[in-house]
Amino acid sequence: MLQARRHLIRAARTGAAEAPLGRPGARAGRSPVVAPLAARSVARGMHPLARGDENAQLYAYDHGVKSAFDAIVPVLKQVSALQHEADFELQAQTIARRELGFELPVSLLADAWVEQLDMRRLFAWCVFETYRRFCDEVFTTDPLGTGGDSEFQAFLQTCGFHTLDISPCADGRMAHVIRYVLRLPYRPVRRRSYAGGLFDIADSLDKWVETELFRFREGRPNTADEPTRYLKAVVYHYSSVDPAHEGCAAHGSDTARAARAGVERLLEFQQAVQNTHCCGASIDQLLIGMDTDTDAIRIHTTDSAGGIDLDHYIDARDIYDCTRALSVIEAQEWITGHVQAASPGTSEGMSRFMVHLLTNNLSQIDYVLRYHGGHYSDTGHAERFIGVGIGFEEVQLRNLTYFAYLHTVEEGGQDLDVGIGIFKRLNVAHGLPVPVVVRYDYHGHVPGARERATGRCRRVAGALNERYPDLSAQGLLHTLLVIRDVNAAGRIEVLDCSVGAHLTQEIH
Amino acid sequence: MLQARRHLIRAARTGAAEAPLGRPGARAGRSPVVAPLAARSVARGMHPLARGDENAQLYAYDHGVKSAFDAIVPVLKQVSALQHEADFELQAQTIARRELGFELPVSLLADAWVEQLDMRRLFAWCVFETYRRFCDEVFTTDPLGTGGDSEFQAFLQTCGFHTLDISPCADGRMAHVIRYVLRLPYRPVRRRSYAGGLFDIADSLDKWVETELFRFREGRPNTADEPTRYLKAVVYHYSSVDPAHEGCAAHGSDTARAARAGVERLLEFQQAVQNTHCCGASIDQLLIGMDTDTDAIRIHTTDSAGGIDLDHYIDARDIYDCTRALSVIEAQEWITGHVQAASPGTSEGMSRFMVHLLTNNLSQIDYVLRYHGGHYSDTGHAERFIGVGIGFEEVQLRNLTYFAYLHTVEEGGQDLDVGIGIFKRLNVAHGLPVPVVVRYDYHGHVPGARERATGRCRRVAGALNERYPDLSAQGLLHTLLVIRDVNAAGRIEVLDCSVGAHLTQEIH
Repeated sequence: MLQARRHLIRAARTGAAEAPLGRPGARAGRSPVVAPLAARSVARGMHPLARGDENAQLYAYDHGVKSAFDAIVPVLKQVSALQHEADFELQAQTIARRELGFELPVSLLADAWVEQLDMRRLFAWCVFETYRRFCDEVFTTDPLGTGGDSEFQAFLQTCGFHTLDISPCADGRMAHVIRYVLRLPYRPVRRRSYAGGLFDIADSLDKWVETELFRFREGRPNTADEPTRYLKAVVYHYSSVDPAHEGCAAHGSDTARAARAGVERLLEFQQAVQNTHCCGASIDQLLIGMDTDTDAIRIHTTDSAGGIDLDHYIDARDIYDCTRALSVIEAQEWITGHVQAASPGTSEGMSRFMVHLLTNNLSQIDYVLRYHGGHYSDTGHAERFIGVGIGFEEVQLRNLTYFAYLHTVEEGGQDLDVGIGIFKRLNVAHGLPVPVVVRYDYHGHVPGARERATGRCRRVAGALNERYPDLSAQGLLHTLLVIRDVNAAGRIEVLDCSVGAHLTQEIH
Repeated sequence: MLQARRHLIRAARTGAAEAPLGRPGARAGRSPVVAPLAARSVARGMHPLARGDENAQLYAYDHGVKSAFDAIVPVLKQVSALQHEADFELQAQTIARRELGFELPVSLLADAWVEQLDMRRLFAWCVFETYRRFCDEVFTTDPLGTGGDSEFQAFLQTCGFHTLDISPCADGRMAHVIRYVLRLPYRPVRRRSYAGGLFDIADSLDKWVETELFRFREGRPNTADEPTRYLKAVVYHYSSVDPAHEGCAAHGSDTARAARAGVERLLEFQQAVQNTHCCGASIDQLLIGMDTDTDAIRIHTTDSAGGIDLDHYIDARDIYDCTRALSVIEAQEWITGHVQAASPGTSEGMSRFMVHLLTNNLSQIDYVLRYHGGHYSDTGHAERFIGVGIGFEEVQLRNLTYFAYLHTVEEGGQDLDVGIGIFKRLNVAHGLPVPVVVRYDYHGHVPGARERATGRCRRVAGALNERYPDLSAQGLLHTLLVIRDVNAAGRIEVLDCSVGAHLTQEIH
């Protein structure tokens, strides 16, 4: 009976004509124009599988962090208006303490009576100080911790995978993809963000090799004779509200192109592993699309050989709508049956993993419905700073950071140009500087690693200022240099800040 | 009796006072002022262990290649003198064919009657064309081939090592260290040259990981349960003729500093392996010094824990002098006894390997005696071009190439600056341009690898011209862009040449 009901719902939602290859539930081609989720499933309640408590907790955290950054401009406006009053410093610090939770650097306030307050420096300093406090919170109180790292790793292995390596687009609207959109613990999942999801094959190949060696030598996360594989996923994105303009910039807002590029890169990585290592060495692959307005995902179906079908995918929006009136058990069964029917060639383990991701995503769809009316009001870019380098695992929030994952400005110049372009519109157009956090994580147990990370920070900061000399000269580009010892799992360490060398101690 | 004789010779050469720790034969501290080898061992004949035939073959090859490069300037002088004559092109091509073995590009000669010949372009073109022909010879006729690749690999394993990874200084006077100075086959030995021998630890760590995985998965070069190790060697250098000026520029011609830096880097690499991988993971290390005037090496002694003794080493010059009057068998036994006595804590396998290198080096000392009167006349830099990128295994000749092993100009800028400084004195001071070959090797069986190597070449060439805008604008910096598929083991592929786009086809 449940089977019949499932089919009824599915037929009502997608229609046989939409699945030309006869796969039930797999939608063909670019999705037909569908009304935004908010309109279809008015925010009148929770999905039976949505985790309301977790949603409330995640929203409170997101809201708290964003509010801290967004308080900066209003506070500085107040401070600016006061700068020629007699008790300016006292008033300014009172406001800052109350609204921001910290005092402003005395050195930047003290000269206001002689000259104008340097609002650019002050703004950059506040962004960096807020970032530092945000990092400290993540690394000391673990607000996003799920406590389920080892459970997830165990589940992953029962699905046939020992490592999950995800490359989303570097777009800030996807920075929350691991912890929010897919509801995965962020520590056991490897995230490497690249513009357009076009990850570096050599980097992934190195990780594959390292992972295999750990399995062989140390039996972690499992021994090499376990029949599990390295799972590499690409997450591309699109916009259901404004598909022609707010999709992936790296692919000209062309969803089909973004998906195709993701598949091509995954295939290249797979072939790189197969051709470099013999004896059946390979990887498994997953292609996921994400609507940056609703956070709904779609997972492309795979055949029995693990090949990704560009034209067919399972959309979590459909699942949400088809199962929202069911009981928990009915909904779970519906999803399992739906995935198996839509992707019959897929291995049992991969099917189970897809069910896991799609089910998790229902909570996020619910989250966007409940807290953002079905789709975000900031459909476009609204990042608060640019993050350059290697690291930033603490950033799991949407539209907080534009990432440029790079070793050198020379190699990552194009990604950086995109980010600087975004911040020219967001900040420079309003007279505010571009705040760039240059960050390199390092392994403290490797001799000299800290010194090399420090050297990298300084080299990249120098190259940044050379690449954007006009911004730099006008005080419209500010950098904070930080490193972090991933072995110590502690706080970030602030090396330097362009706002003024004498501020470093105050930031510390 | 032989034992007594050996000790007699040793005592006569080094004296007890020179080995304060009581190790026979191990010389202490910075070497006492010793007359150059030529003066001590007049070039009156071959050492019993020197391979005269190989020396003749290696000399002929070196001489042939250098002569080809060195013919360029005299030919261009002749051509320049003729440029306003009526049958200029005919005469120029006749001379070029006869002296260089190839014709000059018609496009560069054709306009000579209108304007001056562009000698800078012509010079760069000739250097690049000679380089291309030189590469083709290496990759098609294998003039340096020993045919002993697999024998060497087998011997290495009997000594307790499965990989030999050598980092010499990037100085062009050490480019022949593998094939000439140490008389090793160049294909099975990994060479990574860095200024001052200060190799990149992350690069070596990646190679260590990859090597171990191949042992585990594919049993090559041997299975992981074989008790062999990865042997990493650093070769620093000094000058016996002009120690204060012609030593290692990266270490201010300070031999002790160069040696110490090498040991520190080796220890850091060892600790990086030990701390990143458990279960007894480690490497073995070797520190070698080389006199760039005589090509004599000295190998630092090691203790039973594999620790390198900075203050004690075994000098091949001493061995040469002490054994030159012996028979082949006597000499071999003398060297074995000498190494064991000088480095009693060293493992039997490492001792055997040290004996192998020291014995091989006797041929090179003989080579320099016979063909260069005991020391090279070009004690300083005399490189013919700069090689930038990853590759250049074909360059096994002294003072032919200044290497800058790099992925980006941003990271390798300091090495490049040193190279450009050398070529300002060698070429620019005489109005000639700096010829730079930008080269990236790639694995053709990895999808997209050729495109990535091509992209790297173009990016690095662009960054080079940006870094040295004055040279670039004056036509004093020319680049040849080449790639090579190491899986195909074929010729290099020319991508582009700054001499003029229309020349690329002619170069091909």
